[in-house]
Amino acid sequence: MFVILVYDTAAERNPKVLKTCRKYLHWTQRSVFQGQLSAAQYRSLMAALTAVIDTDYDSIVTYTARSPELIDSHTLGVDLGGPGDIL
Amino acid sequence: MFVILVYDTAAERNPKVLKTCRKYLHWTQRSVFQGQLSAAQYRSLMAALTAVIDTDYDSIVTYTARSPELIDSHTLGVDLGGPGDIL
Repeated sequence: MFVILVYDTAAERNPKVLKTCRKYLHWTQRSVFQGQLSAAQYRSLMAALTAVIDTDYDSIVTYTARSPELIDSHTLGVDLGGPGDIL
Repeated sequence: MFVILVYDTAAERNPKVLKTCRKYLHWTQRSVFQGQLSAAQYRSLMAALTAVIDTDYDSIVTYTARSPELIDSHTLGVDLGGPGDIL
């Protein structure tokens, strides 16, 4: 599946969230990651993030689609994620 | 079309970016908006944002799908956008 992940977490937990997301996804821009994951990898990422965040305070939203072809991506301004992360 | 918009812009331009996005989309969490737009509304939003950002420095990424049914949304932790923004 194709995954877009955005996080809004307390500053002190950001490094752990970043590190966890980087294991599974490509960095797109500040607090945004994207990539292709299997269902098992997605579950594993969600479990790892649940262990790292404070679920009473932090927020992580994922948008998933069966295939990247279902989603068009467009960048206005600078492409921070670099050519390796273009859909 | 269904639109997810994420922005990474200089702090001094964030208020204008926020204001522009709020005219067209629902706030999801820090630097993330989502919503349904017509193709004309989407073009209008992109034109308005191009006028507001510094395209040599700022970055705005949009992910669009023909229909919200093609994208599953899941929140881990707090749902900051509130019930009105749940897909």
